Amino acid sequence: MLNAKRVLHFHEGNAGMKTLLGGKGANLAEMTNAGLPVPPGYTITTEACRQYYAEGGVLPEGLWTEIRQGLEQIELKKDQLFGGRDNPLLVSVRSGSVNSMPGMMDTILNLGLNDVTVDALARNTGNPRFAYDCYRRLIQMFGNVVLDIDGYHFEKQLHHFKQLHAYNEDKDIPAEAWMELIAQYKDLIERKARTTFPQDVYKQLELSIEAVFRSWNNQRAMVYRKVYGIPDTLGTAVNIQSMVFGNKGEDCGTGVLFTRNPSTGDNLLYGEYLTNAQGEDVVAGVRTPLPIAQLEQEMPEVYTRLVEIANRLEMHYKDLQDIEFTVEKGELFILQTRTGKRTAQAAVKLAVQFVKDGILDRKQALERIEVDHLNQLLHRAIDESAKLDVVAVGLPASPGAATGQAVFDADTAEEWVAAGKRVVLVSSETSPEDIHGVIAAEGVLTSRGGMTSHAAVVARGMGKPCVCGCEEVRIDPDTRECIAGDTIIREGDWITLDGSTGRVICGVVTLKEPQMSAELDELLSWADEVRSLKVRTNADTPEDAMKARQFGAEGIGLCRTEHMFMSAERLPVVQAMILADSLEDRRIALEQLLPMQQSDFEGIFSAMDGFPVTIRLLDPPLHEFLPKLDELLIEQERKKWALSELDQAEGNIDLHSLIRKVRNLQEMNPMLGQRGCRLGIVFPEIYEMQTIAIFQAVLACRAQGITVLPEIMIPLVGHANELKSMRILVERIAEQILGPEKLQVPYKIGTMIEVPRAALTAGQIAQYADFFSFGTNDLTQMTYGYSRDDAEGKFLTHYIHHDILPHNPFQVLDTDGVGQLIGWAVDKGRAIKPELKTGICGEHGGDKESIFFCHQTGLDYVSCSPFRVPLARIAAAQAQLLFGQPDSVHAKLLSAAVL
Amino acid sequence: MLNAKRVLHFHEGNAGMKTLLGGKGANLAEMTNAGLPVPPGYTITTEACRQYYAEGGVLPEGLWTEIRQGLEQIELKKDQLFGGRDNPLLVSVRSGSVNSMPGMMDTILNLGLNDVTVDALARNTGNPRFAYDCYRRLIQMFGNVVLDIDGYHFEKQLHHFKQLHAYNEDKDIPAEAWMELIAQYKDLIERKARTTFPQDVYKQLELSIEAVFRSWNNQRAMVYRKVYGIPDTLGTAVNIQSMVFGNKGEDCGTGVLFTRNPSTGDNLLYGEYLTNAQGEDVVAGVRTPLPIAQLEQEMPEVYTRLVEIANRLEMHYKDLQDIEFTVEKGELFILQTRTGKRTAQAAVKLAVQFVKDGILDRKQALERIEVDHLNQLLHRAIDESAKLDVVAVGLPASPGAATGQAVFDADTAEEWVAAGKRVVLVSSETSPEDIHGVIAAEGVLTSRGGMTSHAAVVARGMGKPCVCGCEEVRIDPDTRECIAGDTIIREGDWITLDGSTGRVICGVVTLKEPQMSAELDELLSWADEVRSLKVRTNADTPEDAMKARQFGAEGIGLCRTEHMFMSAERLPVVQAMILADSLEDRRIALEQLLPMQQSDFEGIFSAMDGFPVTIRLLDPPLHEFLPKLDELLIEQERKKWALSELDQAEGNIDLHSLIRKVRNLQEMNPMLGQRGCRLGIVFPEIYEMQTIAIFQAVLACRAQGITVLPEIMIPLVGHANELKSMRILVERIAEQILGPEKLQVPYKIGTMIEVPRAALTAGQIAQYADFFSFGTNDLTQMTYGYSRDDAEGKFLTHYIHHDILPHNPFQVLDTDGVGQLIGWAVDKGRAIKPELKTGICGEHGGDKESIFFCHQTGLDYVSCSPFRVPLARIAAAQAQLLFGQPDSVHAKLLSAAVL
Repeated sequence: MLNAKRVLHFHEGNAGMKTLLGGKGANLAEMTNAGLPVPPGYTITTEACRQYYAEGGVLPEGLWTEIRQGLEQIELKKDQLFGGRDNPLLVSVRSGSVNSMPGMMDTILNLGLNDVTVDALARNTGNPRFAYDCYRRLIQMFGNVVLDIDGYHFEKQLHHFKQLHAYNEDKDIPAEAWMELIAQYKDLIERKARTTFPQDVYKQLELSIEAVFRSWNNQRAMVYRKVYGIPDTLGTAVNIQSMVFGNKGEDCGTGVLFTRNPSTGDNLLYGEYLTNAQGEDVVAGVRTPLPIAQLEQEMPEVYTRLVEIANRLEMHYKDLQDIEFTVEKGELFILQTRTGKRTAQAAVKLAVQFVKDGILDRKQALERIEVDHLNQLLHRAIDESAKLDVVAVGLPASPGAATGQAVFDADTAEEWVAAGKRVVLVSSETSPEDIHGVIAAEGVLTSRGGMTSHAAVVARGMGKPCVCGCEEVRIDPDTRECIAGDTIIREGDWITLDGSTGRVICGVVTLKEPQMSAELDELLSWADEVRSLKVRTNADTPEDAMKARQFGAEGIGLCRTEHMFMSAERLPVVQAMILADSLEDRRIALEQLLPMQQSDFEGIFSAMDGFPVTIRLLDPPLHEFLPKLDELLIEQERKKWALSELDQAEGNIDLHSLIRKVRNLQEMNPMLGQRGCRLGIVFPEIYEMQTIAIFQAVLACRAQGITVLPEIMIPLVGHANELKSMRILVERIAEQILGPEKLQVPYKIGTMIEVPRAALTAGQIAQYADFFSFGTNDLTQMTYGYSRDDAEGKFLTHYIHHDILPHNPFQVLDTDGVGQLIGWAVDKGRAIKPELKTGICGEHGGDKESIFFCHQTGLDYVSCSPFRVPLARIAAAQAQLLFGQPDSVHAKLLSAAVL
Repeated sequence: MLNAKRVLHFHEGNAGMKTLLGGKGANLAEMTNAGLPVPPGYTITTEACRQYYAEGGVLPEGLWTEIRQGLEQIELKKDQLFGGRDNPLLVSVRSGSVNSMPGMMDTILNLGLNDVTVDALARNTGNPRFAYDCYRRLIQMFGNVVLDIDGYHFEKQLHHFKQLHAYNEDKDIPAEAWMELIAQYKDLIERKARTTFPQDVYKQLELSIEAVFRSWNNQRAMVYRKVYGIPDTLGTAVNIQSMVFGNKGEDCGTGVLFTRNPSTGDNLLYGEYLTNAQGEDVVAGVRTPLPIAQLEQEMPEVYTRLVEIANRLEMHYKDLQDIEFTVEKGELFILQTRTGKRTAQAAVKLAVQFVKDGILDRKQALERIEVDHLNQLLHRAIDESAKLDVVAVGLPASPGAATGQAVFDADTAEEWVAAGKRVVLVSSETSPEDIHGVIAAEGVLTSRGGMTSHAAVVARGMGKPCVCGCEEVRIDPDTRECIAGDTIIREGDWITLDGSTGRVICGVVTLKEPQMSAELDELLSWADEVRSLKVRTNADTPEDAMKARQFGAEGIGLCRTEHMFMSAERLPVVQAMILADSLEDRRIALEQLLPMQQSDFEGIFSAMDGFPVTIRLLDPPLHEFLPKLDELLIEQERKKWALSELDQAEGNIDLHSLIRKVRNLQEMNPMLGQRGCRLGIVFPEIYEMQTIAIFQAVLACRAQGITVLPEIMIPLVGHANELKSMRILVERIAEQILGPEKLQVPYKIGTMIEVPRAALTAGQIAQYADFFSFGTNDLTQMTYGYSRDDAEGKFLTHYIHHDILPHNPFQVLDTDGVGQLIGWAVDKGRAIKPELKTGICGEHGGDKESIFFCHQTGLDYVSCSPFRVPLARIAAAQAQLLFGQPDSVHAKLLSAAVL
């Protein structure tokens, strides 16, 4: 590799060379070769970056020579000299990683300017104001990116300077004034960095390239990679490109363009531009730009050419393109094209549209969908029938509605969320440094910046609602409040954002459930044709069941019966059942619960007419239904001191006996205590009541012509005998309730595999099971020995930050450990009982990677929350397209692969 | 099987037919064929019993005919007729199971007596008193065993009758009085059982046989089988044997004889007899019998013959024999021989002696040792230097010393122990109904009964200290107290028993550690020659380490460092470390702990000079070192009400902040929380301090010429990266502390495999491990999903009682589940690193079955508590003898076998 070329001119590369050239470099190469107007330049490869790091942060041997040789070619093409006194070449130095990481790494423009060449630029353009502005921009960027001086110092100096001289806007500042500021900037650099701004343009270039290499490992880039799962080892390419200027005058400009609307998917050019500006002015949101359509009036020829290029690029890449362009003295240059980030809504619409347009086939369209992204579609929206206190309207930058408490900086956002609050981040604009705040917040509101500003791009990518450029909102970060019209919103006040319309609303607003678009329905129907993995839902109520069915759920994979016990009118009965001193008393309470459970089941069976419904019998430890011990103890202590002796004697008897019972039921590790079938075996009367309720509901529904396919699931089985004994109980009740109708009811009895031992002895357990449902939440907890309550936010966060674990295993299924148990259990279970049904009902059922694993392991279905059902349908189709027919011996291969 | 013979005469069987004939029947057959004086009889097979149960509790077809035909043969041999008016045949009906279950099932004697035959017996013996006594005994036993009338009613009637007529002893009662009592007994039966005592002797026989069959499933037999792991499906044989009488007069007697002393192993006849008595009088302990040696004076001819027979039987069976004999009118009859139960001390002595005598070879001697039984040898003894308040002395029935609170019945014993107390069961005598109390108690004291009484036999079998026949102690079960000399011992008072000397002592007494006998040392040296599995110990202190070394430990398999933090002077420093607000403060506390830890390690290394020492770095969650939250909350509440406002303001600041910190550290499931290496990774300074202490101790010990082989164990690893990161830490400290001496210190770094995922990914983990130590306590908890604290005494007890689980998996290693993980981990680990050391350090390391598994799985060592080291050495040798060389692919075979 040391001998391979590490500097490639744009005409030497192509779009397929992303890994080596980064996304930006590969696309610049592709466009150059396609004859598009790309300013000449070259790319330093990612391999060079890796070498830079491998050698401890110095440019690898020989690279500098290649860089200088590359520069000579640009000089020839542009007929300019880098550092030349007469016609100096100016270049930009930009990062360009394999995966798009917008704004995460650094860029330096206008390299090649110094005290001498700036005069040449002034002369040649006849625009000294422009030349000195370019020079001060270079010094500012160099000071910030290369010398690591906080950009704030430069901004402050500029601000102070403008106030002193009463300049309103940058464009009002004349050349002489810029020269004065340049001197101040140079002083600032000497003071802060104890070095001088280099007049040697090659030194400028060398230091800038190293700085871009280094920026691969800056804080925000590392966070971004963590969030998006980008490997740290890839490194970034560096693009050296001759400068073109959008800020030479009013016949200049710069802009960003999407070939279609990235928010809605509509087939209309979409973008923004600024005249007489450099590119970062648009992206940074410092000035609010104009919609692209206006360019047609202002520069009709440029517009026509731009439209033509945009169409060409979209057809070429067969996807939505996000294009950066600059107009220099009426001449159009394309500086970048890349696959455009889009909302989930747009992604779906585009996928379907591309198929209709014959650009993609259905499978390609399905493969392209980013499943996690779809989640955005399933966000709730504002219920329009509600009375809204709209206090401002901004740009609808990322759809969906969010409610939270206003906070005014990213750190506070993170802190409050860690403390269990929901927040909306309110900021004049966001920068990559604020990414942790965006991650934490429910939604983002900015007062400045457009649809392509940092906040908008990041929020869309994360599927979070965002309202941008809402200039009506004036934010005072010092007093930690903002004013919107007459309303003052203070930190901690509740606000609601509607990212689909741009509305900012005071207070908490009722949100309504997401609707499925026609395009999504179409896409999902294609997915259904492809996939072999079934998709069920986890639903505990008829409402959830109905919703999931609308989303295409093919049954219920997990109906938790304990949630049915938690309502205000039932809890006292449940508590009476638990506190019963005798079996007799317990039976009385259970008899009261029976009709309630039965009606729950009737509702769910009706909603799932024709589809299987897996009902899990009571799982949590009984103390979860009782008051907490420490609260009772404090109450008791309080009574001792606060009440008269009479009251005490009266009041304490019940409290005493309650404390005794709660203490009796208390457990050191409730997760590993008396729950699941351990309850059912020790107190069979509870499971008996539930089973009676199920079978009576079956009869009632059948009488109404509803097709009921009940699957009774025994939780937390770890030994075959547990399931055996509970199977006997259920069969006995079935006999008793169904009587002769038993033969007509195709009920199943199975178990959750959620204890490692159940997976290890799956062959024994399968003898008594019609189905296995992998409860991967608990299985992960026990396989890792992690209590999720105690791990997340504590050591688990530390582990992920410090690369001890690649993922949070509760989000992404751990295939090495937990997956091995699942594969083993499926194989051993099917060996005993080939018709054994298998599925997964943990939260992983809605995660793409985990769904891929389930498909490969040959499971029959996944079950996930109603809102994730559409995602799971797509992911299941993608799994089929990627891996073909599932392979039930996969687990063995996997086992052999894990050392 | 239906056609097989179900009734076998003694001359038709032999000792090898135990499974069919039961132990008693097989031995009676063997003795009959050897020409010993055995009263003629036959055995109804265990198969018949199984058929009886299979057919729902009725005698299987044709059996009755076989029984009657068998009886005819006895009639011929004895020249008597069953039910005959002139010379009636009397028989006994006794149970006889495959495994000895002394006293657990029922026996009926004197069958064949009725109102008519009793007269013939009176006539023929010329002893009406004897005949009517026999008859009343039959009615009493029949009423109790067959008709299920509580024996207490008969005893009360007899007692009342004796008081009324002022008879002191049974032998004072004349025939006429017995006749009167017989009438009362008959009434009693009619009242209680609403039936009459059958005059038809065949009816007597039939009902008695069925009752013995039924007694297989009585409560105490079921409990006994559970305790000793005897399958419930075996069934019992029934022995029908012609009666001989030890109670016909003063030239009659009955006794029990051991061929050697079953308590000490000394080669001297050992036993007891009573003249003019029936067998149950000796066993039940109603009269205190005479030592066997006295028989030499009383009946020299009988004695000589008995000695000759005893020697013959011991040589024949090559083991200690427990013989029952009866002398009828000077003629010796042998009624039973069986392998004699013995103390562990005797077992060891006998095994060595039999080898010396050429009866057994060393391997046979080793194989014969019951490992669990040896535990008894390792009981502590009374420290003779202590001042003892000896209040009585009884028979030294089962060695070892025990301290506990006195209780006066078995139910109370069980209740108190369930409530966490230690008890000594004090009872005038025990019966099989009391077995649950004996199991629960630390030791047993009886005021009646000899060395072969129920209490003595059962206690010896369980290895519990027992003092018997202590007539100085007068027990009043009503007032729940006993008087010993001048001392009143009330229920709940602490007493101490010395089962080796028979002393009863008031109060708690200092006990001293067990000593190894020369015989045990010899046996262990034979075991060491045989075994391939190494035996280490779990020891946290130099004292424990020294003790274990004396017991033959070959290193420390687990040294828990947290116990070193718990002492009164260290805990405040540990708490300061935990509560530190800054890393700086934490380091200050850790620096104080460092020299303490170092001196601990120096002591342990010295004690284990030349042997490896595995040190586990800090494992428990930090909150274990802090006060409990609910106590703090109550304290806070109390302060609110109790203190003046001034005090409150002062006192609450610390409490508040302590509560906040404790709350912060509190965990829902501490078992699965921030502990083990999760602590070491989040707070590396703690593990750093411990590692520094270890290596500094290594240097200090090496300077004194001690050979140190430290093995640093990282706990709770679940992912290879955890071990990797901790290995880097330890290596860094090693470099830093040892410097150039590093190469001379053969330290190892390894991990505990105690999280299922660690076993599943053992191949990955082995890359960073020099050894695996299986922490089977936690591995069992997580594989089953059981919190031991919450399971034992709750659902786990229920599970074992209801046969959901075959064993408590914390006592006997679960080979199907946990064992599969161990086998997998060993194979995968060794595949990556053939020199990987493997061992087990959970409590299973001292359990025989689990040691067998470890041997078969090819582990290098087991580690157990110091007291169990000798047991483990024997078990390891037995494993080698039973299974040959360990097979490292065993796990694969096992995996294939588990469905």
